[in-house]
Amino acid sequence: MSKGNAVIGQSGGPTSVINQSLVGVVQELRKLGHVDQILGARHGVRGIVEDKYIKLNNAPDELLERIAATPAAALGSSRDKPDQVYCEKIFANFAKNNVRYFFYIGGNDSADTARIVSELAQQAKHDLTVFHIPKTIDNDLRVHDHTPGYGSAARYVAFATIGDDYDNKSLPGIKVNIIMGRNAGFLTAATALARKYETDGPHLIYVPEIPLAADHFLADVDRVYSKLGRCIVSMSEGASAPDGKTWSEKLNEKVEADMHGNIQLSGTGALGDFMSDFIKKNLKTAGGKKLRVRADTFGYPQRSFFGCVSETDAIEARTVGRKAAQYCSKSENNTGGSICMTRAAGSVYAVEYHLEPLQNVARLTKHMPAEFIQNGNDVTKAFIDYVTPLVGSIPNRGSLEELKG
Amino acid sequence: MSKGNAVIGQSGGPTSVINQSLVGVVQELRKLGHVDQILGARHGVRGIVEDKYIKLNNAPDELLERIAATPAAALGSSRDKPDQVYCEKIFANFAKNNVRYFFYIGGNDSADTARIVSELAQQAKHDLTVFHIPKTIDNDLRVHDHTPGYGSAARYVAFATIGDDYDNKSLPGIKVNIIMGRNAGFLTAATALARKYETDGPHLIYVPEIPLAADHFLADVDRVYSKLGRCIVSMSEGASAPDGKTWSEKLNEKVEADMHGNIQLSGTGALGDFMSDFIKKNLKTAGGKKLRVRADTFGYPQRSFFGCVSETDAIEARTVGRKAAQYCSKSENNTGGSICMTRAAGSVYAVEYHLEPLQNVARLTKHMPAEFIQNGNDVTKAFIDYVTPLVGSIPNRGSLEELKG
Repeated sequence: MSKGNAVIGQSGGPTSVINQSLVGVVQELRKLGHVDQILGARHGVRGIVEDKYIKLNNAPDELLERIAATPAAALGSSRDKPDQVYCEKIFANFAKNNVRYFFYIGGNDSADTARIVSELAQQAKHDLTVFHIPKTIDNDLRVHDHTPGYGSAARYVAFATIGDDYDNKSLPGIKVNIIMGRNAGFLTAATALARKYETDGPHLIYVPEIPLAADHFLADVDRVYSKLGRCIVSMSEGASAPDGKTWSEKLNEKVEADMHGNIQLSGTGALGDFMSDFIKKNLKTAGGKKLRVRADTFGYPQRSFFGCVSETDAIEARTVGRKAAQYCSKSENNTGGSICMTRAAGSVYAVEYHLEPLQNVARLTKHMPAEFIQNGNDVTKAFIDYVTPLVGSIPNRGSLEELKG
Repeated sequence: MSKGNAVIGQSGGPTSVINQSLVGVVQELRKLGHVDQILGARHGVRGIVEDKYIKLNNAPDELLERIAATPAAALGSSRDKPDQVYCEKIFANFAKNNVRYFFYIGGNDSADTARIVSELAQQAKHDLTVFHIPKTIDNDLRVHDHTPGYGSAARYVAFATIGDDYDNKSLPGIKVNIIMGRNAGFLTAATALARKYETDGPHLIYVPEIPLAADHFLADVDRVYSKLGRCIVSMSEGASAPDGKTWSEKLNEKVEADMHGNIQLSGTGALGDFMSDFIKKNLKTAGGKKLRVRADTFGYPQRSFFGCVSETDAIEARTVGRKAAQYCSKSENNTGGSICMTRAAGSVYAVEYHLEPLQNVARLTKHMPAEFIQNGNDVTKAFIDYVTPLVGSIPNRGSLEELKG
């Protein structure tokens, strides 16, 4: 009798380590040997409903290892958010292809898709065990201590901020950096790791969790600039105003419809340029002297830059894939779930893995807890302690400031 | 009798390896022992006229090595472009401080400053030997085969494009990346190193040397998108239109003065957003279907990202600093110059160093030669052969496309 086939899919925004998870599933399934065909779905759920698969049983390990070290989704990804009807098509394809195991690598929307498909199979009494493998640079999955993809993206934004801060020390001015994160500020907050010396930036950190009033923003920048003659700002793309709207939404209201007709956070420099213009027009510090104000939107390199991977993140991303295959081989009564990391007790960083029911992870997002945020413009030591082990080792650096001591 | 003092300064936009050159000069001067004080000018020529120096004779080697591995100008930089009067102030400070040796790390403007100060010293019969140490990510110095700083910036844009291209394969669409380079396209051209597989981007490369007509641009994007269902564009921030104006200048004419009042190429996403909007509005391919078009402006991380250094670039940047100190110790009749790398003959990459008269490097910029540019939208194999050894080794990567063979 057939052992049944497995489908693996990748979903949502790619990361630097999403292929580690893919390779972890494939290699472990091949080792365990309890499934027949290992089918990679092209472009996530879209590939499933269109019956587009690539068979991975015989992919050479040498190739898989190179793919694991390559950023972005090797199978292709999808932004589709399946509703009930879409999920029924997914299930129909699975029934047709004798698919008994489904591994879906993605964020909270993907966990929800996994949940719906799993429930449909139960209703139809079709043997299907569904696993959600976590992936998101936003780090916003409930229950999970952190998510694969976050550590490498955090490393990227920290390293970009280190360089940008020294660049700004070289040629002083005000610099606003826009960081990915619509609802959760974890990635923006990670730029705090750029600080080593007393005057190092970022000097101000704004996350979506705490609304930012225009006058507070100006007062913050003014205070830093008056003291240091320069200022590095880390701002989430989802930074919001006290009225509940994001600053990107407010920006869109001010600009003609034909310039920026739709709210688009990534892949545009509009928010950074808006903040830069706002500072130029309103900051009183320079007393009429022209301020040097610049903005960068860190953009897609945050999630896909080739060659900026946290070793910790890479290992954990591989491990959640392997764990999914292992849980799968031991599963009874089609019990799947989300492969969840929690932090082990003790002073040395370590994680423990468990299987979490899909409904506890699906849909809703996790936000930065209050104890990680300080004064609405910075992070706390508790956050630094939380994030430090996730980004891997940071090479040492030097400054002539050390000569002054 | 006093042997005389040396001043070292760093100028213009920082790079990832400008501190390698600083450390090369300092360590070699200490070894050779022919100068008294080794004075680092804070913020380039600005520090000289304001008499702000930091003494480097006793800086520990351990600290210097960490500084060498740290991006951006450790002494601080300056955008001042000294005229004759400014240069006279520089010279007056040198005369007062018994400065007999001046090492200026920078681009063609810095070479010109070095030239003027050198001539003033000759006129005043003051013993002063002046060296220009090359540094620019733009790679636009005449006579020099290439310049320290370029290789690492080229590595950054290549690695960002590798990741972005795979991101775009995962979630297909049209992506425009704006790369630094006002007048010379060398950096934008280096994104071509991202190509490995047949359909890899960048698919279109636009450099400032070849004017780009709006209709040609649309036709190019349309052709690639029709064939591949996606398109990665690398465009120089200084890309120009057939009328001789840059696209940034034309953009500024279209947008209200209060939105983008001045032409600013770096530190703004305006050009990328403009190109993105232009494609969305005009591209016919999608037949009314909404196109996914995004733009990133790679911004300051190109020149200062921490942890993306070409090993070749780091070694050469250190070496031009050391060579300057060596030429200095052997100089007769105050003969200085620009430390110039030329490519040695033969199939294995190697450079030779010589001292080039300052006036041959000063002021004017070098452009991409015609044999490096193809069809106005790509680079040639000759360019790939030229740039490959400069960026260091590129880690191997993998794609499931290999399974199809």
